[in-house]
Amino acid sequence: MIVNQQSYRTIWPNVQAQFVEIIDQTKLPFTFEIARITNLPQMIVAIKTMQVRGAPLIGAAAAYGIALAMIEDTCDDYLHNAATQLIQSRPTAVNLKWAVQRMLRLLLPLPAASRLSAAWFEASIICDEDVVLNKAIGQHGLGLITTLMQTQARNQIKDAQSSQINILTHCNAGWLATVDYGTALAPIYAAHDAGLAVHVWVDETRPRNQGASLTAWELAQHGVPHTVISDNAGGHLMQHGKVDMVIVGADRVTSTGDVCNKVGTYLKALAAFDNRVPFYAAVPSPTIDWMIQDGIKEIEIEERSADELANMTGRLANGEIAEVNIFPVGTKVANPAFDVTPARLVTGIITEHGVFSPNQLKAAKI
Amino acid sequence: MIVNQQSYRTIWPNVQAQFVEIIDQTKLPFTFEIARITNLPQMIVAIKTMQVRGAPLIGAAAAYGIALAMIEDTCDDYLHNAATQLIQSRPTAVNLKWAVQRMLRLLLPLPAASRLSAAWFEASIICDEDVVLNKAIGQHGLGLITTLMQTQARNQIKDAQSSQINILTHCNAGWLATVDYGTALAPIYAAHDAGLAVHVWVDETRPRNQGASLTAWELAQHGVPHTVISDNAGGHLMQHGKVDMVIVGADRVTSTGDVCNKVGTYLKALAAFDNRVPFYAAVPSPTIDWMIQDGIKEIEIEERSADELANMTGRLANGEIAEVNIFPVGTKVANPAFDVTPARLVTGIITEHGVFSPNQLKAAKI
Repeated sequence: MIVNQQSYRTIWPNVQAQFVEIIDQTKLPFTFEIARITNLPQMIVAIKTMQVRGAPLIGAAAAYGIALAMIEDTCDDYLHNAATQLIQSRPTAVNLKWAVQRMLRLLLPLPAASRLSAAWFEASIICDEDVVLNKAIGQHGLGLITTLMQTQARNQIKDAQSSQINILTHCNAGWLATVDYGTALAPIYAAHDAGLAVHVWVDETRPRNQGASLTAWELAQHGVPHTVISDNAGGHLMQHGKVDMVIVGADRVTSTGDVCNKVGTYLKALAAFDNRVPFYAAVPSPTIDWMIQDGIKEIEIEERSADELANMTGRLANGEIAEVNIFPVGTKVANPAFDVTPARLVTGIITEHGVFSPNQLKAAKI
Repeated sequence: MIVNQQSYRTIWPNVQAQFVEIIDQTKLPFTFEIARITNLPQMIVAIKTMQVRGAPLIGAAAAYGIALAMIEDTCDDYLHNAATQLIQSRPTAVNLKWAVQRMLRLLLPLPAASRLSAAWFEASIICDEDVVLNKAIGQHGLGLITTLMQTQARNQIKDAQSSQINILTHCNAGWLATVDYGTALAPIYAAHDAGLAVHVWVDETRPRNQGASLTAWELAQHGVPHTVISDNAGGHLMQHGKVDMVIVGADRVTSTGDVCNKVGTYLKALAAFDNRVPFYAAVPSPTIDWMIQDGIKEIEIEERSADELANMTGRLANGEIAEVNIFPVGTKVANPAFDVTPARLVTGIITEHGVFSPNQLKAAKI
């Protein structure tokens, strides 16, 4: 997508020079900075500190992490060890494990001498595939938005000419969460590019504020109308008819359609259900974990650092970027990073193969 | 209650010297500062900028606002004008109107020469009454907590010895929101002082962060165990059995039991209902608006400044207090400050007269 009128992905390799470059997302929205990752430990740090984040992008980053490890040593032990370290770097996103295991399946049967070049190539395929998947998600989601607009016009809920679809999203599942194009935002970009009037309610998304920092930033770069709201405001807006649909991404979706996503998603799904607002999760199929049934019982929820809540980065009056601690000294903080929205609250899962209700998902075997 | 081992109320008069003092709540939790209010315009600023906030405290502050106006001029016109200005200073809290109208009813029949001293006296009665009401709320809420502990022990949900009741609260309805003692926190203080093991999940409460800034601060001053969480985390905690009850305050409760409170309360009520966690609003009876039936349709929701979301105050690494702007430059923000929780999600209203289910409220005519 576009940053300062120039085209970017979130991650790209330099195979000749043997490094990977990423957009350092911890610096957004204040500074647009490219970080160079030259070895496995640096990639693990990038994943842990969320310089790269978002389930699909973490998968791509982990694949490149394997490639960087192969520069060091291509033996089986080293490969297994790199895989284990990468899988442990973030516990929730299923794509991470998926990408690492795909790399292992490809590389282990190969002679050690072929592994490095094969790893670079496979990682690039994982990236390109992600872009293709996300574009397909965009098209299927666009279908939903178009249908909703037509229904509203037919029922004269809104004037056909002046109709605007208001979509609420939580956290960042835009192109910054993927290699390119995004998951939850892909339908929105597709609709905007098709000339439809879409407006996005952007949840601030505490902690880490990825809605305000990343989603608002990337929507602004692309020119999509949007308004940032507190995480607390969505229910009120839905009660007053100001939200036409909710689209979120997901870190993991179970075979039964439970949606694990950034903490707070469950609360928005409850409000959507209570106000008959359709609630969708947009996910590429690698995000679906076919092995688990009950998301609430079976998905380990990452407990992240208190600093994510207590410390805030922003611009001082003089324009300098500074971090402040906003809590009383010594305050105890709990920070579960994700929650699970039960399938009964989910209208549909938008995948690259189409839109499925939670109970169709398993049968679809996508 | 206690600040630095000393007893304070949130507002108190100096009748001889003709001024009022308040704890300036915009400075908490970083600085404990007393502000002197010497005239009506200053009191209106204090209410608007939320140096004083919380429905009961706003009522008390408005009563003293009338007293300060009477220093200037005691004629009918001036009194009516002061009343109008005060009522317009914050639209949502019913106590404000209630307190101002009570002052008018008392003062208008009096000769002009008696009005100033009568106003000082009546404002002090409003304050003392608030404290009495809140203590009674504390006792009735303590009954609920005790019953819950006994039920859990009987059902062996928790060990009777090691039982701890986890109470989630949103925003600040502690003593800082009242003249003293608090509404939602009154039962918690009562339980803690009675030696019961209570632990409070404190919602950060964006925007303005009154949970983290005020509730965590006052609980810490009183020594009540508590943990700050993001506004997004409560649903996840409830799904995993970590919340035994929710107690919030309210800015207004309808005769039908709809609860208007800080934005985000509705989302917590939905999660509580979905997880069979009892949800209570603790309110003195002046907070009940007997004139309205449908809170969602009839209560005007205050839209507050974008700065409340965009600007955050905290400590820099060097200990200085600074304000940062955390959003991308030019971001559009919407900031509805309250929402309405429909009565169907409310287990009970804790008042000074006892605990009532929403449908008992009207019949109780409290």
